Amino acid sequence: MAKRIGGRTRALERPPAVRAWAALGGKKEGEGPLRRGFDRLSEDSYFGEGSWEKAETRMLRDCFALACAKAGLSPQALDCVLTGDLLNQCVSSAFAVKDSGVPHWGLYGACSTMAESLALGALLLDGGAAARVCALTGSHFCTAERQYRFPLEYGGQRTPTSQWTVTGAGAVILDAAGSGLRLTQVTPGRIVDAGVADATHMGGAMAPAAFDTLSAHFADTGRSPADYDAIFTGDLGALGHDILEDLFRRQGTELGVRYMDCGVLIYDAAAQDVGAGGSGCGCSAAVLCAQILPGMEKGIWDRVLFAATGALMSPTSAQQGESIPGVCHAIVLERGD
Amino acid sequence: MAKRIGGRTRALERPPAVRAWAALGGKKEGEGPLRRGFDRLSEDSYFGEGSWEKAETRMLRDCFALACAKAGLSPQALDCVLTGDLLNQCVSSAFAVKDSGVPHWGLYGACSTMAESLALGALLLDGGAAARVCALTGSHFCTAERQYRFPLEYGGQRTPTSQWTVTGAGAVILDAAGSGLRLTQVTPGRIVDAGVADATHMGGAMAPAAFDTLSAHFADTGRSPADYDAIFTGDLGALGHDILEDLFRRQGTELGVRYMDCGVLIYDAAAQDVGAGGSGCGCSAAVLCAQILPGMEKGIWDRVLFAATGALMSPTSAQQGESIPGVCHAIVLERGD
Repeated sequence: MAKRIGGRTRALERPPAVRAWAALGGKKEGEGPLRRGFDRLSEDSYFGEGSWEKAETRMLRDCFALACAKAGLSPQALDCVLTGDLLNQCVSSAFAVKDSGVPHWGLYGACSTMAESLALGALLLDGGAAARVCALTGSHFCTAERQYRFPLEYGGQRTPTSQWTVTGAGAVILDAAGSGLRLTQVTPGRIVDAGVADATHMGGAMAPAAFDTLSAHFADTGRSPADYDAIFTGDLGALGHDILEDLFRRQGTELGVRYMDCGVLIYDAAAQDVGAGGSGCGCSAAVLCAQILPGMEKGIWDRVLFAATGALMSPTSAQQGESIPGVCHAIVLERGD
Repeated sequence: MAKRIGGRTRALERPPAVRAWAALGGKKEGEGPLRRGFDRLSEDSYFGEGSWEKAETRMLRDCFALACAKAGLSPQALDCVLTGDLLNQCVSSAFAVKDSGVPHWGLYGACSTMAESLALGALLLDGGAAARVCALTGSHFCTAERQYRFPLEYGGQRTPTSQWTVTGAGAVILDAAGSGLRLTQVTPGRIVDAGVADATHMGGAMAPAAFDTLSAHFADTGRSPADYDAIFTGDLGALGHDILEDLFRRQGTELGVRYMDCGVLIYDAAAQDVGAGGSGCGCSAAVLCAQILPGMEKGIWDRVLFAATGALMSPTSAQQGESIPGVCHAIVLERGD
């Protein structure tokens, strides 16, 4: 049974093992610094399908299948899959798993979905409701661009604060039994609205939510940033990364070099013309599965705080003048025996 | 800790109490047979706001606040709120709770959201991850119509199989402690795609998912329909209701008069011109909170199987020729001491 630590954090009594993971990416992701961490990269933005939406579905389906294969499990050995994406009505993730026969918990956490799905999955495992679950999410530059912004053919100019939606997916299998990497703590996020209304500055909109969740995590656990070998936010990008550093600095806390953002890590900002960095459900999902988990397995980091961030807005809400609230869910990953 | 029964069902070891609930509805819902069960009905489709999307948000926010008030709790006494809706990026439910300061698990289960949120919330309570949670969802005819179908001003003709999106919301507070009504079992749904591609025949698209989940529930528990005082599906409507009856009849099971559908119950089909009945997240949410829970409290039913249904499609997926997969999550509600 999960143990309550402070107001929001839960320590898992039986921390589930991270049994297997898989990361898929597109062409641009394959030209970035994490290229060697991906299991597969597609040169074709259509992934062999007839539309970008079907491509996103295909990428998620393949990522799910690959994670199951790497775990040595058939999908039917899972108690459930927790999944969501950025498309209207979350169709890519639903269609990706629809023929698997696995019970489905559909989520919408925007770009925080990788942490949300892992957090809820871990709590279900810890509570005995499941023995094995899969957390799955991803995004596609071309579907996001035309749904949220402009037709790609329009070739709209991008502001320097804008971010580049990652074409990528990540899937993680959590197992109540097993050894190695474990998910040990969960700090769920609450929605934080700092009043930012600029849809081309998502990092600024989401940083206050990351600050809220990480502050709660440190207060709940009595830990400081120095208790982690690495701290990753989801997709704040270069500007959001610096805003979060500033927010902590103002209260006398230095996050230091251990603090990194998945949106900064996934592309080479100098060479790849991605504005302030990567974003999208696939950003933190792919970096988790292509860099963080492999790095922990190799012993680079023993204890990691992974805090994926999401912007809870839609084109309609932006057009109606609403601000952009953010949310950030955090999980602790630890290298065990 | 949840006990595994059969392949999919979980029996809660410490079944949470249904501490309070609230139901809000619109004008048409107030003209229907359940009018007396609603806590509040709005004659104004804008709920005093400047757009239908803001109206949906307002309705959900008010419903959440009312459920908390009826429970005698401040929102901050909740460990989390589990919520989702039909709008792109689930903005109405996110905006409804964004200023509450309550940790947020965002869900997308389409019209199954009321059962999905209650099921996940109950599993979190049973597993010790939370002591009190709120499950919240709803829908609005005008936002759904213009997002999924046609501008309202267009006045498009409706097919007899089409359903009417309910303007309504439901919120339920589950508490690990307490007496009275309890949520005792959960049977999560898997996605079922029967190949139906007619977006004006959602009942037909979703009925196979309801059949799959209810069949699993009966097989897992060794129970038959007769073990329930009432069985409710979410929003199959009149046609989907009959299809589900037929599917069970073919395997020799009679659901009988105890089987009802929320989409049939919420409107007077003869007088209200709603096609095959109600639909939307607000359909099962409002019927649960305006009829089922009040009815159980009055002693009309002691043991109820509540199986909300969702269609996992988007306008884009329909335009790209995809079929409409369905999902159905089921929970058991029992009247205790």
